[in-house]
Amino acid sequence: MNSTILEEQQQTNAGEANMRSSDFTRMFNPRGIAIVGANNDPTKPGCQTLIALERHGYIGGVYPVNPKYVEIGGTPCFGSISDITNPCDVAVIALPASQVPSVIEQCGNRGIGFAVVLGGGFRETGPEGLALEIRMVEAARAGNVRIIGPNCLGFKNVHDGVYASFGSITRPPDLDPGPVSAVIQSGGFGSSVIMQAWQAGVGFRHVVASGGEADITVPELINAFVDDPKTRIIFAYLEGVKNGREFMRSAHRALEAEKPLVVLKAGNTTQGVRAAASHTAFLTGSYDIYKAAFKQCGVIEVHDIDDAVDVLQSLVGGRIAKGRNVAVMSCSGGSLVNFSDAADHNSLNVGPLTDATRSLLRKNLPSVASVVNPVDCTAGFDKEENAPLYKQCIEALLTDPGVDQLGPFMATAGGGGFSSFMKALVAADNPQQKPIFVFSARPPEFTTEGRAILKEAKIPLFGTPRRLANVMAKMADYATALEHKIRLIDDFAQSTTHRIAAIPAVKGALNEYSSKHFLADSGIIVTRDALLPADSQDFHLPPGFNFPVAVKIVSADIPHKTDIGAVRLNVANETELVVAACDILRNSKRAMPNASIDGILVSEMVTDGVETIVGVVNDPIFGPVVAFGMGGILAETLRDTTYRVAPFGLNTARQMITELRASPIFSGLRGQPPRDVNALGNLLVQISALAWEMRDCLTELDINPLLVRPEGFGVVAADALILLS
Amino acid sequence: MNSTILEEQQQTNAGEANMRSSDFTRMFNPRGIAIVGANNDPTKPGCQTLIALERHGYIGGVYPVNPKYVEIGGTPCFGSISDITNPCDVAVIALPASQVPSVIEQCGNRGIGFAVVLGGGFRETGPEGLALEIRMVEAARAGNVRIIGPNCLGFKNVHDGVYASFGSITRPPDLDPGPVSAVIQSGGFGSSVIMQAWQAGVGFRHVVASGGEADITVPELINAFVDDPKTRIIFAYLEGVKNGREFMRSAHRALEAEKPLVVLKAGNTTQGVRAAASHTAFLTGSYDIYKAAFKQCGVIEVHDIDDAVDVLQSLVGGRIAKGRNVAVMSCSGGSLVNFSDAADHNSLNVGPLTDATRSLLRKNLPSVASVVNPVDCTAGFDKEENAPLYKQCIEALLTDPGVDQLGPFMATAGGGGFSSFMKALVAADNPQQKPIFVFSARPPEFTTEGRAILKEAKIPLFGTPRRLANVMAKMADYATALEHKIRLIDDFAQSTTHRIAAIPAVKGALNEYSSKHFLADSGIIVTRDALLPADSQDFHLPPGFNFPVAVKIVSADIPHKTDIGAVRLNVANETELVVAACDILRNSKRAMPNASIDGILVSEMVTDGVETIVGVVNDPIFGPVVAFGMGGILAETLRDTTYRVAPFGLNTARQMITELRASPIFSGLRGQPPRDVNALGNLLVQISALAWEMRDCLTELDINPLLVRPEGFGVVAADALILLS
Repeated sequence: MNSTILEEQQQTNAGEANMRSSDFTRMFNPRGIAIVGANNDPTKPGCQTLIALERHGYIGGVYPVNPKYVEIGGTPCFGSISDITNPCDVAVIALPASQVPSVIEQCGNRGIGFAVVLGGGFRETGPEGLALEIRMVEAARAGNVRIIGPNCLGFKNVHDGVYASFGSITRPPDLDPGPVSAVIQSGGFGSSVIMQAWQAGVGFRHVVASGGEADITVPELINAFVDDPKTRIIFAYLEGVKNGREFMRSAHRALEAEKPLVVLKAGNTTQGVRAAASHTAFLTGSYDIYKAAFKQCGVIEVHDIDDAVDVLQSLVGGRIAKGRNVAVMSCSGGSLVNFSDAADHNSLNVGPLTDATRSLLRKNLPSVASVVNPVDCTAGFDKEENAPLYKQCIEALLTDPGVDQLGPFMATAGGGGFSSFMKALVAADNPQQKPIFVFSARPPEFTTEGRAILKEAKIPLFGTPRRLANVMAKMADYATALEHKIRLIDDFAQSTTHRIAAIPAVKGALNEYSSKHFLADSGIIVTRDALLPADSQDFHLPPGFNFPVAVKIVSADIPHKTDIGAVRLNVANETELVVAACDILRNSKRAMPNASIDGILVSEMVTDGVETIVGVVNDPIFGPVVAFGMGGILAETLRDTTYRVAPFGLNTARQMITELRASPIFSGLRGQPPRDVNALGNLLVQISALAWEMRDCLTELDINPLLVRPEGFGVVAADALILLS
Repeated sequence: MNSTILEEQQQTNAGEANMRSSDFTRMFNPRGIAIVGANNDPTKPGCQTLIALERHGYIGGVYPVNPKYVEIGGTPCFGSISDITNPCDVAVIALPASQVPSVIEQCGNRGIGFAVVLGGGFRETGPEGLALEIRMVEAARAGNVRIIGPNCLGFKNVHDGVYASFGSITRPPDLDPGPVSAVIQSGGFGSSVIMQAWQAGVGFRHVVASGGEADITVPELINAFVDDPKTRIIFAYLEGVKNGREFMRSAHRALEAEKPLVVLKAGNTTQGVRAAASHTAFLTGSYDIYKAAFKQCGVIEVHDIDDAVDVLQSLVGGRIAKGRNVAVMSCSGGSLVNFSDAADHNSLNVGPLTDATRSLLRKNLPSVASVVNPVDCTAGFDKEENAPLYKQCIEALLTDPGVDQLGPFMATAGGGGFSSFMKALVAADNPQQKPIFVFSARPPEFTTEGRAILKEAKIPLFGTPRRLANVMAKMADYATALEHKIRLIDDFAQSTTHRIAAIPAVKGALNEYSSKHFLADSGIIVTRDALLPADSQDFHLPPGFNFPVAVKIVSADIPHKTDIGAVRLNVANETELVVAACDILRNSKRAMPNASIDGILVSEMVTDGVETIVGVVNDPIFGPVVAFGMGGILAETLRDTTYRVAPFGLNTARQMITELRASPIFSGLRGQPPRDVNALGNLLVQISALAWEMRDCLTELDINPLLVRPEGFGVVAADALILLS
């Protein structure tokens, strides 16, 4: 099925539509809702919408549309949309696909600005469905109608009882109103997250199942949530976005507005991509690049329902961590050990306390207690009568400048001990509003009162110390993103001031010589090269060159020279040079008889560099992306590579360098000198600028190896390959 | 504080005690229990034991001992242990440390075989406490008394209401009797796991908080659980064991008896070790080695409370998986995508179904359903009336030979749909008793009936697809361990048949030349070496050698030759040889002026080998352990290393090789030949035998690099270092 035309059209539509009508106020707060295809069978979508609207007390007009009925459950039924005379802003369409385009047209005529298309039967079913989808989108565009769906559960505005939806989104548990708005690319799985978040006491604002996203896409909805004053936190379940940069722009807007954007992205592995393909049929894309984009936008990435719920539960309290220094206090030493392991895995610092804190703890806790961080109160301290002492301990920890986040662990405590300690915790002075996370393993039925106290104070409670450490780490990451938000946004939006050479007017692969030439002209240092004609009978060291040299084949048709024996390193003298050149020519002709050979390259050897690889891919979803990793077969096997969407600035480049597992190499290990990471950082920034500027013609760029020389000696591209389109 | 004497004594005691009295029947089923230091204050341990015994209907004799009381809560109180005339097997001692040794003596005199010492104040408090602990253990040994504790919550036998304990172990929730016995090195954290397992419907047999383990240790308790017919599953929370091999033997007994041993080990990271040191004060040891030991014993390792609960919940059903092929079916496509990602991370195979299965699914499911694995029934199928069709689908999947484990996902389904589907699931024919795991995200209050049905059928239910995948993987790992149990046990217990050279009668480091000599005499191939005198004025290639060669300093005092410039590779001719030898001597003398220099080593270069490292450490807890990893600075930085406790067999060696992240290197990448992994495997086995045989004198052995040559060409030790004690 060729859906490219539609895809392109949609991109255009979405772009234009964006210009036209990115205000979703009337969608989320409609004056009236038409249910087209309404009926009285509660197992069917059209009826479920009616029931939900009634059950949740929607105060706007409800207009069932179905020529077969005069009324449904007491509500008058309209023969067609045009019969509705009262203000109406949303049409929920519960009809077979074939009827949808004309209904959209009617919406346009009637001035209904938003439609929710519940049913499937479009693009995902084949060419006929695709044609229907194109007609639907064209009708929407012509009539100034924005569409949610098709093939979706619809949306709800929890605060105002607006239910333009069916299925699990409309059924109990009835969500409590709150600050979280969610866009979910799977109604069922997204609802699973939301139900469990509800159980953990999280309240919601808007929930949108975006379905096939024929018109309205995830980034537009994130923008709408950013603009909504009652949304404070945004959750997205994604399998794939259509336009990565549009997504990044919306995520940057969320970051700028300090509305945390929590994303669960699925379809990231071989089996996951296969499953997603038969589910949403979105292009899931390279997960490595999504991960990079999330980092570049301060997105809080979560990986499971639990994880999402824990983070949402922590964010609703509104206390934002300032850093990675955490303190924990428990009557169960084992839970502190377990937490400390998890803290280590999450790069949290269970650091030293001030003398003042320690002496207060020493005074208030049993003599056998351990008053260093983690603080072990020892078993039996959690008695009701110790609550005043406990409160003082909590206050000391909360005012300790070495503590950014606090974890008071209750472990197995229950009954009066638990509730009196929780009362003390909530009453404790917390002048800087540092985040607090409680661990309790005791089942809810034995800790009812204490849990209620925490819920009221919006202090999250977790069933395991590890989940607590996981959340603390994510809060700390978000704190870092907030701190650098201006830089993150500006880096990405920057206009290039880097020197870039004239782009060769060719298509396809440039050979090594031309590729390095282009890089050199763009200000990137490459090895000293000379091109010798391949048909020469007598190879000599070019004037001004010194041995040892590298000798390689030059051919745009041979990208992997080493594999076929077309590279010879450390060539030491004239005799070896001749032998090397002849060997290389012979090997190349044998391995690839049809390759066009442009000559023999002689390059001066750089022997003091650490081998790395820098690459650019032009991703279909995110556009130009820079990859950076260690060089050599071993490093490639270990996949020690990191990615960033281009362009980016020096801080991001430095992060890429430290992110590699092998990064200690650059500091100089085992007698090796430290490496020129400044030059490396600058090169990555320069490549990112080049990648962005050349986005319309650059398919791929590889510098392999890029040699990182000792500090002060820079970096040198020893081989390069550019693919243009 | 020097606790070595005590440690040694305990080792001996434990050993002897093991001979004497490893039968814990009378401990877990005592005819009577004395509570020494009983009182009537419910906040105190001595009283809590009494309350617990009464509350749980213990049918044996209960004998409070305290000269201050005539009776406590209606039970007659004894002035001293010797006054108890009825049969009594356990004394719970709730007294200050100073009084404990004499009470233990009295227990011995009275013939009470087991004591539980609740209080602290021993070794962990300093020299006086240590002296007390020594006296206590001596008294126990003299009187044939075995001790649980000190500094512990004690133990309970849930089936028979035996509570020799206080604190969280005695308090609600009251555990249901069941097949899980647990030993926990932290009463509080262990109880946290147990409480959450209770909540998930797991029943228990014995729970022992082992405390300071002055006498009875974890391995003895595991052995007791293996011997207990009513224990089917064993759980252990560990911070460290005193004797790694004793632990491994008990774990092997559990494996042999097919009683899954689930272990949560904490204190594994820098911060975790620090926290454990101030908690149990056990030597936590190298986590890498614990991980290796767990693999070698088929231990099911878990990492958090959630994880432990999920695994226990899955094991109680008694359905053991046969492999890694899993099928999942859901009405929520998104949950399938999420699961598939997690399956990939856990090396589970969401593989193809047979034609028969697919056509049954096609017949029974909606036309838009996806009938490949993962099976997407699509939204709305989970209706009560579809239950019969659903049952057929489940049966088809359960009888499909490509399915080892089944995950029916209910996601957001609730009410009648959920319960009717669960009824169908439970009623479905499952001739091979394949394990089934359900995912439901809908809160319990909306799925009460369905959950009860699953609980009754002992089918576990999880709140996220990822946790389900995690458990399936652990079940598959355990299946593999069961399949290979004989080999795992025999490998470890094997008597060496490998040739081992006479061990040099020296202490300290052997230089490279001697180290390699010893290895060569033990049948390990080393590079061809010649030792030239360091005071030679004229260095020549030894007769029979060919250039290129490596030239190195030989000195037992210089273990890291490369770092100081005392190694020169690829030396090509006589001139270079002389220069190299002089440079190396000069560099060595400059860097380490006091090093004793034994000569200059000339070694033939092996240029076709992949660099690896093989090492032996003699671990204080586990004894000799073999480490294997990739060589070179990069690999060392990336810590691509794997461990196994010696000795082991070829299958284990092969596992080590494939476990390295860089393992694809051995198959031959990028034009490189495949490597001689057979020779490598044999060498690892040989080194493991050597390590075990030399356990009393070998401190350390390093072969770095061990060169792995192309297939058929073997492996060569190019450098080696042996440290003897």
